[in-house]
Amino acid sequence: MAKNKGSKNTSKLKVISLGGLGEIGKNITVLEYENDIIVIDCGMGFPDDEMPGVDFVIPDTTYLEKNADKIRGIFITHGHEDHIGALPYALRDLHAPVYATRLTLGILRNKLSEHIYEVQPELVECAAGDKVKAGVFTVEFIHVNHSIADACCFAIKTPVGTVVHTGDFKVDLTPVDGAMIDLCRLGQLGNEGVLLLLCESTNVERPGYTPSEKNVGASLEDIYLKNKDKRIIIATFSSNVHRVQQIVNTAVKYNRKVAITGRSMLNVVSAAIELGYMNVPEGVLIDINEIKRYNPEQLTIVTTGSQGEPMSALYRMAFSDHDKVELGPRDLVVISATPIPGNEKLVGKIINELSRKHISIIHSGVADVHVSGHACQEEIKMMHALLRPTYLMPIHGESRHLLAHKALAESMGMPADHIFISEIGQVLELDKNSAKQNGVVPSGKVLVDGYGVGDVGNIVLRDRRHLAQDGLIVVVATIDTDQRLLLSGPDVVSRGFVYVREAEELMDDIREIAAEAIEKCFNDDALDWNHIKSRVKDDLTKYLYAKTKRKPMILPVIMNI
Amino acid sequence: MAKNKGSKNTSKLKVISLGGLGEIGKNITVLEYENDIIVIDCGMGFPDDEMPGVDFVIPDTTYLEKNADKIRGIFITHGHEDHIGALPYALRDLHAPVYATRLTLGILRNKLSEHIYEVQPELVECAAGDKVKAGVFTVEFIHVNHSIADACCFAIKTPVGTVVHTGDFKVDLTPVDGAMIDLCRLGQLGNEGVLLLLCESTNVERPGYTPSEKNVGASLEDIYLKNKDKRIIIATFSSNVHRVQQIVNTAVKYNRKVAITGRSMLNVVSAAIELGYMNVPEGVLIDINEIKRYNPEQLTIVTTGSQGEPMSALYRMAFSDHDKVELGPRDLVVISATPIPGNEKLVGKIINELSRKHISIIHSGVADVHVSGHACQEEIKMMHALLRPTYLMPIHGESRHLLAHKALAESMGMPADHIFISEIGQVLELDKNSAKQNGVVPSGKVLVDGYGVGDVGNIVLRDRRHLAQDGLIVVVATIDTDQRLLLSGPDVVSRGFVYVREAEELMDDIREIAAEAIEKCFNDDALDWNHIKSRVKDDLTKYLYAKTKRKPMILPVIMNI
Repeated sequence: MAKNKGSKNTSKLKVISLGGLGEIGKNITVLEYENDIIVIDCGMGFPDDEMPGVDFVIPDTTYLEKNADKIRGIFITHGHEDHIGALPYALRDLHAPVYATRLTLGILRNKLSEHIYEVQPELVECAAGDKVKAGVFTVEFIHVNHSIADACCFAIKTPVGTVVHTGDFKVDLTPVDGAMIDLCRLGQLGNEGVLLLLCESTNVERPGYTPSEKNVGASLEDIYLKNKDKRIIIATFSSNVHRVQQIVNTAVKYNRKVAITGRSMLNVVSAAIELGYMNVPEGVLIDINEIKRYNPEQLTIVTTGSQGEPMSALYRMAFSDHDKVELGPRDLVVISATPIPGNEKLVGKIINELSRKHISIIHSGVADVHVSGHACQEEIKMMHALLRPTYLMPIHGESRHLLAHKALAESMGMPADHIFISEIGQVLELDKNSAKQNGVVPSGKVLVDGYGVGDVGNIVLRDRRHLAQDGLIVVVATIDTDQRLLLSGPDVVSRGFVYVREAEELMDDIREIAAEAIEKCFNDDALDWNHIKSRVKDDLTKYLYAKTKRKPMILPVIMNI
Repeated sequence: MAKNKGSKNTSKLKVISLGGLGEIGKNITVLEYENDIIVIDCGMGFPDDEMPGVDFVIPDTTYLEKNADKIRGIFITHGHEDHIGALPYALRDLHAPVYATRLTLGILRNKLSEHIYEVQPELVECAAGDKVKAGVFTVEFIHVNHSIADACCFAIKTPVGTVVHTGDFKVDLTPVDGAMIDLCRLGQLGNEGVLLLLCESTNVERPGYTPSEKNVGASLEDIYLKNKDKRIIIATFSSNVHRVQQIVNTAVKYNRKVAITGRSMLNVVSAAIELGYMNVPEGVLIDINEIKRYNPEQLTIVTTGSQGEPMSALYRMAFSDHDKVELGPRDLVVISATPIPGNEKLVGKIINELSRKHISIIHSGVADVHVSGHACQEEIKMMHALLRPTYLMPIHGESRHLLAHKALAESMGMPADHIFISEIGQVLELDKNSAKQNGVVPSGKVLVDGYGVGDVGNIVLRDRRHLAQDGLIVVVATIDTDQRLLLSGPDVVSRGFVYVREAEELMDDIREIAAEAIEKCFNDDALDWNHIKSRVKDDLTKYLYAKTKRKPMILPVIMNI
């Protein structure tokens, strides 16, 4: 493992991802040159099935905390959770200015307001075209298309050459707000020379081009035309303000009022309108409490819950638990999203419940009501072709995506040894003429559960998984080791194991085996507490596995008087 | 709720699904007329995320057990788990003969051998074209295409008319074994008149036709041609003997030996060869222990694990835990399957691990290495068009599929009131001229966990989910209510809550709050055991939620001396 060797390495640029490699989510990239560090994005990730009870996951930023005095700025590409979600936590210890575009800062401010800081974070508004000096680095904001407005990629001038970090992007030739990704500026950068490209890989397995956001508008138009007698409820990602804008536009065209429901949808829409990212004619938006005053065909409801989230507004509507919206035969529900991998069953649950209630539903499986925000193969190739970088480090992807990105770059003629598949914490060192992987820095994941940040680790998770599988048996006994007497118990409490009222015989057996185990310890002169506990545990585990083929967690509570 | 009204209703045919409606899996349909019952299929289902620790789910067959003396036969359409998996359990109480084709019986015998019966089940081999008399019913076996060989649908002559139950089917014009679905016989039945169609709905949301199994053969050919220097490892469903046959055929063509790994793959392939459903030239199959004797380009390995199952052979290979197969740069892994909804992340885990190790991989996302076994819209229409049934009851599908099937039938001109969307346990009554839903019979799901059948219910599952979310705190104290003294404790044991060594302060607080709660009970003269326990529980729950925003399960163990 390489250490920081001080002055010897000072002429190298270090590029380190502390998240977003070998995973989708918690994107964060560090650029370091001598005494200067800049950070790009600071996102959160979602827990997998192996992390029960965990709310979300953030990157381990120990390396940044140790080098806090070197950090000249934190640059944010756009306002999605996987790019800003860990920032409220990181800013507790890092006091560098945060640079981002207006909408991104609007969303970020909303998040930061839920936290308390000793030193109030410094937020600096930027716009596409701006160049920010941060130590030896100069970071240029370049407009890209994505499923959120005001997204940028960065061209970073460093002492050894230009690094381009794409953030998340797609190439939309007909974007809703009219502002296409700045292909021209990317081409100029390519002509000037790019040392390293850090390019997102999310859709690199998908051939062709990602369709334009405008395609969804056309589908919506079709849906409104064919459902003139119905109330139309549309669920989508709250952060996709262009999608919401298109819903509003179509509603206006067909003389409908628009009501918003779902906390994050209300937050983002009001921020987007206030900051000028959405344009809603006077009188179109109505409060959700006012919908009773209108007929179904006069209404559109925009809601959260497109991922089937169990507490979301759409979920509550589907399961007749929303206090404002009751669904019926004159409703059409449109899910304008695709389930994120892992959410298929949750979304399916809503579709099934609506079907069961004979409520009409349109989802991305049956109509073009969603497009991705990420570049497919041809768009990624366009990025490569315009920039013609000397080196490539694919980012933002699981291992399959990073490897597929490497294959794509090779198919365009890039030499294999100019492509670096990195891992979280791994250091890529570059100078003007060379690049190589050299050592690692501290890195990892930190689990957030409720107010706890990092207090749930592998042991706690292992126990939770064990408890979830087969439940728990607590065996309580009071003994007197001096007299070798079982004074009371063993009593048995079980949870999540079997339905106790119908398993009395089994419970009797458990008590008996525990008692025998304790007696055996007395007889063997093995009076050590831990020994008695282990014996009870082992004997019960063996018995229960033979009898039930299950392995509940066994907690012996032995009290000595 | 209607009850069995005895003689009044005797001229009606009752059709009841005890599973497979509003869900994918555990298919079972009951036909009842006066004193005769036949059962079609008896499958198992998989647990959802809400059922931690549950191995699988079987239908509640109480209704059949109560009417066991009426059952004239159990008819099985094909050998997939969701059609036969619950049979080993049902046959403990039901002693009717089981009718199925040869391969289906071969797979079934293998399953039954793991169970012990007082009365040995009677298995009767049938073939397509056979007609079996069972009470008032005559059941005709009709050949269909599906992702397992020897699959049939049934035409059932009943006193009120003909009922067709499709089982699972597709229309394969170029099937691997040359035997196309018997469209001719289906057309004859249509000409003779069909009262009721029970038709599968799995793929009813997909437009067009399901591609032929032969398409996979063509893709395999292409893969073998382009990877002549590599060992080829192919994972697929063990029950898809036609798929395995095509793998063998391609291996033979390119002079490769075939080794099999994975218990179910070994079982099914040996049964299929023995029963004549697969044709493997002498000397092609080798034992997995012999692979060391061959070069990579001389080998194909067929394995289980196409759904990413954590204990499967492919999973173990990917994570370098298979004792016979070590993967390296001269290997190509082909996953010849699509993830079943819910398994996407498991399959993704294998793809990522192989990518991380730079092992080549081809899956259904990037090449045509899998086709479905279920009819798409046009094939379902063909079934309808040939049979022209008077009534339709869509089966085998979640609510979304049943409803989509209804819409499809209406689009073909069937009156809406001739289509019955049923629920599990709901009775559809028919005579020659009418059909209506009338009442319900006992039904539901039974969870199987280890050796336990039905001993895990809602309370146990609720506790498991609770334990998985936030873990557990056991508070142990010995008190003397007469003297109102806390004799020992409170001691605290926690599992799955926080990492205790770094939360000593929290543990101290828990002890203190529990002690205070007990003291308060003493002071309030509230010496009832349950009262003391509730108080400890409530005070701790409140404190912990305020402090950590988590709600661990709290188990107070209070002993009175």
